[in-house]
Amino acid sequence: MYDVIVIGAGPAGMTAALYAARTNLKVLLLEQGAPGGQMNNTAIIENYPGFFSIKGPELANKMYAPLVNFGVENRYGVVVEVKNLAKYKVVITEDNEYQTKTVVIATGASHRLLGIRGELDYGGLGVSYCAVCDGPFFRDKVLVVVGGGDSAIEEAVYLTRFASKVMIVHRRESLRAQKIIQERAFANPKISFFWNCIVDEIEGDDHLVTGVRLKDIKTGKYMEINCSGVFIYVGLYPMTAPFINLKIMDDSGWILTDEEMRTKIPGIFAIGDVRKKMLRQITTSVGEGGIAGQQVYLYLQDKKEV
Amino acid sequence: MYDVIVIGAGPAGMTAALYAARTNLKVLLLEQGAPGGQMNNTAIIENYPGFFSIKGPELANKMYAPLVNFGVENRYGVVVEVKNLAKYKVVITEDNEYQTKTVVIATGASHRLLGIRGELDYGGLGVSYCAVCDGPFFRDKVLVVVGGGDSAIEEAVYLTRFASKVMIVHRRESLRAQKIIQERAFANPKISFFWNCIVDEIEGDDHLVTGVRLKDIKTGKYMEINCSGVFIYVGLYPMTAPFINLKIMDDSGWILTDEEMRTKIPGIFAIGDVRKKMLRQITTSVGEGGIAGQQVYLYLQDKKEV
Repeated sequence: MYDVIVIGAGPAGMTAALYAARTNLKVLLLEQGAPGGQMNNTAIIENYPGFFSIKGPELANKMYAPLVNFGVENRYGVVVEVKNLAKYKVVITEDNEYQTKTVVIATGASHRLLGIRGELDYGGLGVSYCAVCDGPFFRDKVLVVVGGGDSAIEEAVYLTRFASKVMIVHRRESLRAQKIIQERAFANPKISFFWNCIVDEIEGDDHLVTGVRLKDIKTGKYMEINCSGVFIYVGLYPMTAPFINLKIMDDSGWILTDEEMRTKIPGIFAIGDVRKKMLRQITTSVGEGGIAGQQVYLYLQDKKEV
Repeated sequence: MYDVIVIGAGPAGMTAALYAARTNLKVLLLEQGAPGGQMNNTAIIENYPGFFSIKGPELANKMYAPLVNFGVENRYGVVVEVKNLAKYKVVITEDNEYQTKTVVIATGASHRLLGIRGELDYGGLGVSYCAVCDGPFFRDKVLVVVGGGDSAIEEAVYLTRFASKVMIVHRRESLRAQKIIQERAFANPKISFFWNCIVDEIEGDDHLVTGVRLKDIKTGKYMEINCSGVFIYVGLYPMTAPFINLKIMDDSGWILTDEEMRTKIPGIFAIGDVRKKMLRQITTSVGEGGIAGQQVYLYLQDKKEV
């Protein structure tokens, strides 16, 4: 029986595991990939205090290193379900079942990809899914933003703080974003639109993005656009399929918690990008991880289980 | 006119300044000491992800370094008042006045000191004010906890997860802590009490704490106690005197905010240890700093001031 199972080894999950393990709890950290989460797909991080500039996988390694030292057990596992029984919880993976007194869900969120040529090749080399993270790398550059929803348009406006020009590429002839957000974009002199267009391919040289090829889906014609970066906002979804039976999510699948990271089920916590919240950053993830690690201890103490 | 003035350059304030500056806002960071806040009084930090173990002042320097690069203006200033005028705010220091569109308060909290010999000399060398931060350094050691309130007794119980023995020294003959917290302490076999006693001196060798001298204030007699650490919980208070006129605090002086770090005054935010909250850590501070940096931008955008 574990004191806590942390599902997901991104910055939120690793921090929760660190805090819980430092309190001498028996911690299992389950992950279906390499520790680090989305940091592993991030070329350069410049907004995590303590590092001027660091490669994502390198920061992931640095965060992971102390966990072993503090006795965190780390296992590969694809979680398919969590059961909340009367006296304990069960985490079921494709290959195994684990009993635990508490669960911390830190499975994160995933960006919908365009699935076009160049998108993966230039990830972190001009292709981005996070304006707050990567916007400042594109001072005085020309950018393309793909999408027509709230996020796409808000982030396009945000990116005008850095970029010389932001072109929004949208496959329809009107935006889905809220009216007030649309108006900000229309009023912004740096923003222009390509309606009824999709990005057909992201192009670049040996190192960086140099442009995109657009396809006008009404006329079938192609256009070449020069740009230094492509920000893709065609959907972000929480990794919460294994937890549907717990009924701790909102209608879009994001997990609801209070400020202490408690879901409505006692002993089940959620942290990081999987939570319903406004800002998804490494900073916010480690903050929430710290809180959850401490809350697990307080919960077990209240139940006289530590 | 600044876009934002951040008051206090601990981890919360430095992160807010970083995030705001990365968004090309005009940022002034005011501090009355060296950047780093309480990190400057912390010998070793082992619970900030990304670092296995780092000296407090070293982490402070690493967090400060990028700020200059992003154009944060850093000034010495002892803030005495903040005025919320109709169109902007004014931050008044002992020597100056600054106009700003928004304010982020990150002044932190201060531990009440015992004011006895050895307390400052052995700060970070056995004397601590934070069990979550420093508890794991004392595995199988004997500890002294000073105080009789909720924090002292809760943290004494917490410290039994590491220590072989925890002695609570209290100057009265009963505790002020809540009944349920008292009961946990009384039931814990590792905890013993010295009633009606004060710590007269913290003793040590060239490097570390080796014991304390207690004084029984009823009999006037002295006792020598061997221990490796002394955790002092005789009061924690928020640094909020300059903000009293804003009426954004609770009865104990902690600043109240929502989850987005907004106080009830639009354009004034509060982050870090100065906030009313449960856990005060570097992790939580950087999380809140990130949120405030972003919220400042959103606030200014709503007001069409960026």
